[in-house]
Amino acid sequence: MRKINQKDIDNRLTKAIRDLSDPKSYDLVCHEHRLGEPMPSIDKLAKMVDKVRQIIFPGYFGDINLNLGTIEYYIGVMIDEVFELISEQILAGLCFSCGDNERPEMLQLEKDASKIAMEFIEGLPEIRRMMVTDVNAAYLGDPAANGIGEVIFCYPATRAISNYRIAHHLLKLGVPLIPRIITEMAHSETGIDIHPRAEIDEYFSIDHGTGVVIGSTSVIGKNVKLYQGVTLGAKSFPLDENGNPIKGIPRHPIVEDNVVVYSNATVLGRITIGHDSVIGGNVWVTNSLPPHSKVVQVKSRQAEFVDGSGI
Amino acid sequence: MRKINQKDIDNRLTKAIRDLSDPKSYDLVCHEHRLGEPMPSIDKLAKMVDKVRQIIFPGYFGDINLNLGTIEYYIGVMIDEVFELISEQILAGLCFSCGDNERPEMLQLEKDASKIAMEFIEGLPEIRRMMVTDVNAAYLGDPAANGIGEVIFCYPATRAISNYRIAHHLLKLGVPLIPRIITEMAHSETGIDIHPRAEIDEYFSIDHGTGVVIGSTSVIGKNVKLYQGVTLGAKSFPLDENGNPIKGIPRHPIVEDNVVVYSNATVLGRITIGHDSVIGGNVWVTNSLPPHSKVVQVKSRQAEFVDGSGI
Amino acid sequence: MRKINQKDIDNRLTKAIRDLSDPKSYDLVCHEHRLGEPMPSIDKLAKMVDKVRQIIFPGYFGDINLNLGTIEYYIGVMIDEVFELISEQILAGLCFSCGDNERPEMLQLEKDASKIAMEFIEGLPEIRRMMVTDVNAAYLGDPAANGIGEVIFCYPATRAISNYRIAHHLLKLGVPLIPRIITEMAHSETGIDIHPRAEIDEYFSIDHGTGVVIGSTSVIGKNVKLYQGVTLGAKSFPLDENGNPIKGIPRHPIVEDNVVVYSNATVLGRITIGHDSVIGGNVWVTNSLPPHSKVVQVKSRQAEFVDGSGI
Amino acid sequence: MRKINQKDIDNRLTKAIRDLSDPKSYDLVCHEHRLGEPMPSIDKLAKMVDKVRQIIFPGYFGDINLNLGTIEYYIGVMIDEVFELISEQILAGLCFSCGDNERPEMLQLEKDASKIAMEFIEGLPEIRRMMVTDVNAAYLGDPAANGIGEVIFCYPATRAISNYRIAHHLLKLGVPLIPRIITEMAHSETGIDIHPRAEIDEYFSIDHGTGVVIGSTSVIGKNVKLYQGVTLGAKSFPLDENGNPIKGIPRHPIVEDNVVVYSNATVLGRITIGHDSVIGGNVWVTNSLPPHSKVVQVKSRQAEFVDGSGI
Amino acid sequence: MRKINQKDIDNRLTKAIRDLSDPKSYDLVCHEHRLGEPMPSIDKLAKMVDKVRQIIFPGYFGDINLNLGTIEYYIGVMIDEVFELISEQILAGLCFSCGDNERPEMLQLEKDASKIAMEFIEGLPEIRRMMVTDVNAAYLGDPAANGIGEVIFCYPATRAISNYRIAHHLLKLGVPLIPRIITEMAHSETGIDIHPRAEIDEYFSIDHGTGVVIGSTSVIGKNVKLYQGVTLGAKSFPLDENGNPIKGIPRHPIVEDNVVVYSNATVLGRITIGHDSVIGGNVWVTNSLPPHSKVVQVKSRQAEFVDGSGI
Amino acid sequence: MRKINQKDIDNRLTKAIRDLSDPKSYDLVCHEHRLGEPMPSIDKLAKMVDKVRQIIFPGYFGDINLNLGTIEYYIGVMIDEVFELISEQILAGLCFSCGDNERPEMLQLEKDASKIAMEFIEGLPEIRRMMVTDVNAAYLGDPAANGIGEVIFCYPATRAISNYRIAHHLLKLGVPLIPRIITEMAHSETGIDIHPRAEIDEYFSIDHGTGVVIGSTSVIGKNVKLYQGVTLGAKSFPLDENGNPIKGIPRHPIVEDNVVVYSNATVLGRITIGHDSVIGGNVWVTNSLPPHSKVVQVKSRQAEFVDGSGI
Repeated sequence: MRKINQKDIDNRLTKAIRDLSDPKSYDLVCHEHRLGEPMPSIDKLAKMVDKVRQIIFPGYFGDINLNLGTIEYYIGVMIDEVFELISEQILAGLCFSCGDNERPEMLQLEKDASKIAMEFIEGLPEIRRMMVTDVNAAYLGDPAANGIGEVIFCYPATRAISNYRIAHHLLKLGVPLIPRIITEMAHSETGIDIHPRAEIDEYFSIDHGTGVVIGSTSVIGKNVKLYQGVTLGAKSFPLDENGNPIKGIPRHPIVEDNVVVYSNATVLGRITIGHDSVIGGNVWVTNSLPPHSKVVQVKSRQAEFVDGSGI
Repeated sequence: MRKINQKDIDNRLTKAIRDLSDPKSYDLVCHEHRLGEPMPSIDKLAKMVDKVRQIIFPGYFGDINLNLGTIEYYIGVMIDEVFELISEQILAGLCFSCGDNERPEMLQLEKDASKIAMEFIEGLPEIRRMMVTDVNAAYLGDPAANGIGEVIFCYPATRAISNYRIAHHLLKLGVPLIPRIITEMAHSETGIDIHPRAEIDEYFSIDHGTGVVIGSTSVIGKNVKLYQGVTLGAKSFPLDENGNPIKGIPRHPIVEDNVVVYSNATVLGRITIGHDSVIGGNVWVTNSLPPHSKVVQVKSRQAEFVDGSGI
Repeated sequence: MRKINQKDIDNRLTKAIRDLSDPKSYDLVCHEHRLGEPMPSIDKLAKMVDKVRQIIFPGYFGDINLNLGTIEYYIGVMIDEVFELISEQILAGLCFSCGDNERPEMLQLEKDASKIAMEFIEGLPEIRRMMVTDVNAAYLGDPAANGIGEVIFCYPATRAISNYRIAHHLLKLGVPLIPRIITEMAHSETGIDIHPRAEIDEYFSIDHGTGVVIGSTSVIGKNVKLYQGVTLGAKSFPLDENGNPIKGIPRHPIVEDNVVVYSNATVLGRITIGHDSVIGGNVWVTNSLPPHSKVVQVKSRQAEFVDGSGI
Repeated sequence: MRKINQKDIDNRLTKAIRDLSDPKSYDLVCHEHRLGEPMPSIDKLAKMVDKVRQIIFPGYFGDINLNLGTIEYYIGVMIDEVFELISEQILAGLCFSCGDNERPEMLQLEKDASKIAMEFIEGLPEIRRMMVTDVNAAYLGDPAANGIGEVIFCYPATRAISNYRIAHHLLKLGVPLIPRIITEMAHSETGIDIHPRAEIDEYFSIDHGTGVVIGSTSVIGKNVKLYQGVTLGAKSFPLDENGNPIKGIPRHPIVEDNVVVYSNATVLGRITIGHDSVIGGNVWVTNSLPPHSKVVQVKSRQAEFVDGSGI
Repeated sequence: MRKINQKDIDNRLTKAIRDLSDPKSYDLVCHEHRLGEPMPSIDKLAKMVDKVRQIIFPGYFGDINLNLGTIEYYIGVMIDEVFELISEQILAGLCFSCGDNERPEMLQLEKDASKIAMEFIEGLPEIRRMMVTDVNAAYLGDPAANGIGEVIFCYPATRAISNYRIAHHLLKLGVPLIPRIITEMAHSETGIDIHPRAEIDEYFSIDHGTGVVIGSTSVIGKNVKLYQGVTLGAKSFPLDENGNPIKGIPRHPIVEDNVVVYSNATVLGRITIGHDSVIGGNVWVTNSLPPHSKVVQVKSRQAEFVDGSGI
Repeated sequence: MRKINQKDIDNRLTKAIRDLSDPKSYDLVCHEHRLGEPMPSIDKLAKMVDKVRQIIFPGYFGDINLNLGTIEYYIGVMIDEVFELISEQILAGLCFSCGDNERPEMLQLEKDASKIAMEFIEGLPEIRRMMVTDVNAAYLGDPAANGIGEVIFCYPATRAISNYRIAHHLLKLGVPLIPRIITEMAHSETGIDIHPRAEIDEYFSIDHGTGVVIGSTSVIGKNVKLYQGVTLGAKSFPLDENGNPIKGIPRHPIVEDNVVVYSNATVLGRITIGHDSVIGGNVWVTNSLPPHSKVVQVKSRQAEFVDGSGI
């Protein structure tokens, strides 16, 4: 390509490089990597999560032609690979999150990461058990589902909930940062944003799912079903004396067993939606509801328009 | 990385592998692949859909520098490739979905797949004709559009609707599973979830689109426009004597010609939105509307807050 | 795979190829590439945006182990690469968008592209400055955030807003098409759709974000916070004598400083939301609001259902 | 790029395409693929050979961090993968090589391929046993070798001989074409060309190896060592009444146990090099030698040159 | 990884960078790229040569399942791609090779490249015709060949000779540098080094081939066969008054029709090997030979060794 | 693919897996990786060598469009990358080669690797200086060379000699295994096998090169030129009391300044080829030669053949 004067370009590039390399300009938003520490890797975490999904749902994902004669070899190899991948990523999370003065010995961090990784592996059977209930709930609750296989293979909620269950397990084991990366991967792919700290019981399902938000201190009972666009969020939150939000206060809803929430409903604050309730679409709920409640939006009104084509 | 005691790790890994390889634990969620059968492949389907999009909109996608002297060679090669790819995936869909006792001969399935693939190819000119109307509708309806090219190249709805039209065509030819995978691919990329069974007429447009859900028995007329977050969904559905949802009952809306639905509106049940109606944003509609209706949400109220910073 | 009769397939494939190569059928939706002109490339733009993000937030993205001794070399190389990539894509945008009769000399276009690319590079320090404010606003406004690093590394809004600020900068420099591709890339990844023409001031944050739409003529002040599903959109727009929408008229909201808009609220038309206002979730706002306003949806009603399980 | 007149280019390209598509011009050198048959794939064979090498020499190749606790899982998976890969390639070889009239049923070919693949797998332990002797011979015979590991990891002969032993095993099982592809892969990487039909006993080594040629009917005893550039070739061969070479006649040397052949020696014809012989470099041997022979080139002569710098 | 003192490393790295960036140190061996000029690309040339090989031998290479119904589309697309690739690489060659003062206008170079590329395409049918004779000669001359298909698919000489014929064609059209890159690609893969300037007539074959060298001014008649390690080289060459070799003087052998040269023979200087001659292996030939000559090495001698194991 | 009886396959696969996992069968040829240690990686070494070549010959390799304004940034980044890559590979070499009882602390090995890597970087300017002399020698000595650029870009000897000089430098710094891997990479690509321990002075050139072997204790003076197929090798070597070759004894030739060795000559043993000598092709030299020697093969003889077509 023809360029404007090369000399001039060189000078201006050099100036921009110098400006952008000035430590003052990137001070707050620079992550200085300590030598010898691994960085969290979205690619490696994606690979790890894919392998866990292959382990949980044998035969659905990956290139493997599963048969009973060889399944144990494949699961053995995948478990070993998951162990390697998650060990390194847990270590990366531990390193990323600890400040400079509280920093433990690298050797200790490595042992911690390895220990947590082992406990993560040991939790996989329970994650599979939970996912079986979730997949069943989705199948039974959707007249459009043609089989369990379709739910596992196609439904975005299966992906989002499995990422959540993996991330939640890691968070409970004390791993920083990594759980959030894992749920954000599913958020990007499905539009379903479940905070890894939320507590969600079995037989959980989400239909369609785009726009669902489940905040970090939410508590969800058994057999709950959400539709697309549902928010379980927080109202305004208390600030400390410096004007910063106080962390760790429960501020998202408790949703009891057998509740259904229709599309685009917004449920805010530390309220309780009693069991067996139904919340209609597009409503705004900021107060607790007793069990067996049913709420819907007030009737919409006929509008008068000046022109004939829109609003 | 330093590890905790290797012996201990080996024992615990071995136990986890054995647990996860226990057929009882994966019984319901395992897909045992029959030898010699292809698996549905998201990668191959993505490649197929991309090639169809290149065929429909020559010169916009892919690395080809289109010119009139060579276009027929490129379309010839792409058609041949699409034929190979879709033949195999149709076969995969047929194999995935049929149970063990009703299973036809493999040779017969292969011939069926090939026959359907041929009919799919023959439908591509009609798919292009429809897409031309959709793209025109989007261009004419959006003051921010700078040209047809921008609509084709950038608009997520172009991607979502073309995936839907491809998938719907396959579904009408009797292909299981594959159509749903194709619309879910677009759902993941665009946040627009159109069930492949929905019936959608020409000049259809969706603006922005994230969060749109169009249920499986919806029927949409000509020249309909939806904004982001619109749901055409089902209300509660009848159960059979075993408590399972009865499949195949029409349960989503009929939207007649020239209707506009604004963002985040929820339209539920087998109701009819009469032609030339306008539905405002964030409303919840569960009853039929006559032609030329206009509905909007009731006025919102001024709230009293205790603190000054939020809700 | 076994096929149906090969002769028959060949004939039918040939017919489909001929139909699809018929210029009449693709006339409107074909982009005939002029020889010697680059095409806009989503892959190259994604690479460019990734590099800019690496430059803005040193040490967070990419494979580089940042340390102060080598950072200037890395920034130097990345700036040079961004300059090459964006020069070509700007040229592609200029070529894509100009019609046949108004077409300037290629040599002139190349010089223009190079000049604009240089100015784009010179704007990067200001983009970093703005992004620092945005990232701080997100951190301070979210009790769930564990650190600035988590906001930069995990939050989809960081990705969406940085794409927007890059795209907006290019649009102000007169680049067609490319800015829209860049914001649509973020739209696909995050569900956040910000038109590159919108004006957004510093300390801007979006929480969760899926379904947010910010229309092309929106104007947003300092320290504004939006939640998921918020639309800043247009009402119906005036048509010209041919029935086509008139382009370029301001038709989206002005949102003043310190406004918070909760999830799924729809704000439509060239109205002004006064500073320090709070808009509750799921409301539909089509009129201006004075400063310090607070609006929420009217109370939802208790519904009476015939059956016990849904709506 | 600027081009010469586009019209002219189009015409000339079209003519070239037509000429090159004329069946008469490619009649002899065209492989018409029968539908439903796999093609031999160099990529897949390379993957297969790599996996076999990983199985034979555990821990040297591939990304696996071998440890005794998990080795059986890895070998299990690799064996399964090799079985899949080689089954398909054997089938490809069978299809490629059989003419049109003698062609058996596809179903029969598939069963044959599967049966041969199984026998191939069963031969891997013996291939490992042989390779252990070869690697030991190389280590003991080379003062420059720093360990068995270096021989396995770095020596081209290890690669060439393992490819040969794999290919020879397949050839003995009746597989056409594929064995030759496998030895040619090693030929390209190492410059060592061993015909898969040659018979080579244990403790075989080749030093450096570039240029070594071992013809198809060669027979090599135990503990033989060849240096680079050695040819075990054929003299002129008898022709049939049509002037074509008669195939299958033994025409390459028999090399008995404990023979060493130095670099660039050429040994031609069905002669026997007796055991414990040494053949010096650059000699031309076309007659049999008794055991314990030692032959070297006659002394070179002092040359007279006209100018001072060369020959 | 733990590192030695980071400060020290930074200083020493910085010094090394400065030394290596000092123009004096790379003056002679630096290629300063002129902006807007393409660089020769080994990757693109490899892709180009692969496509030409697919065109010449339809059905053997690439992923295409060739059948007569679609072959013209595939050849059409491949021709178009070859035209694009080779146009750019010819331009790169022209730019690379011309000095600073003699440099023509870029626009002119682009047109020249395009014109030459067109002529290259037009020569492909003749290249195919030649290659058919070469492949036939190899098949007829090798008792180990099981079919034409094996010669095309497996024989390294097929690859080396086709690269040579492509490169020679480009060289005759006046393209600098690129032809040599193309023959060196084959040299690396096969060990056969044919200079693109050599003149080689039809029915040419090389058996095994590793180590063959054919110098730039060699002339080879019809139906010539070379074995591995044969050199057709130059003797010492005259120097000009500055002591530099005088370029362009014929200094390699002329080999007439029907000559066979056995392995590792060295034939040097502008001598003529008369037609129907046979040259035995490992000989050193620096004088012309009349037609029907046969030369072999003098008998080797029995050596006396002191120890029993080697030379 | 149809398979033979699946049960039978499973049993036989399981047996093969068990056999191949039996530690007794792989005892000698298994590399048990110690946890936490990197493995030598051919991919990473290839990347490292490519980057060094880009540093040495700026502008020739890689995708960089070199210009003087940005060269220091690029060299800075490449140096940093080379430092990372080679540090890890040096560590891998140190780990690979030390036995179990002599093993130092990992921390110490890491520091050693880092120190050596730093010294390697500091040697790069000298490697460039040497390579400039080699490239000049090749250019001046080859009438077919059209410019320095062609020698750098196309000549296999440039690649082989640069790999050798890099490897030799590492070997002198005490790195095990890695140097040999680096020269074998060049051996595979070029057919030129230079042992990294050989001592080679400046202005060294190799023409064509396939089949050249330079043994580990060779010593080569200034301005030496070798042609293809030349061996500088060892004669038989002394064995110790166990019959193993004694390592480390000088056993390859000393070649003094200004020597030329023609193609396929074999020079064996710790002999000295005096300066300014010329050795003709295909000779076998096992005795020292005084300076200014010239030796060629004795005249070949006219052979008598029975049949007319070969030998």
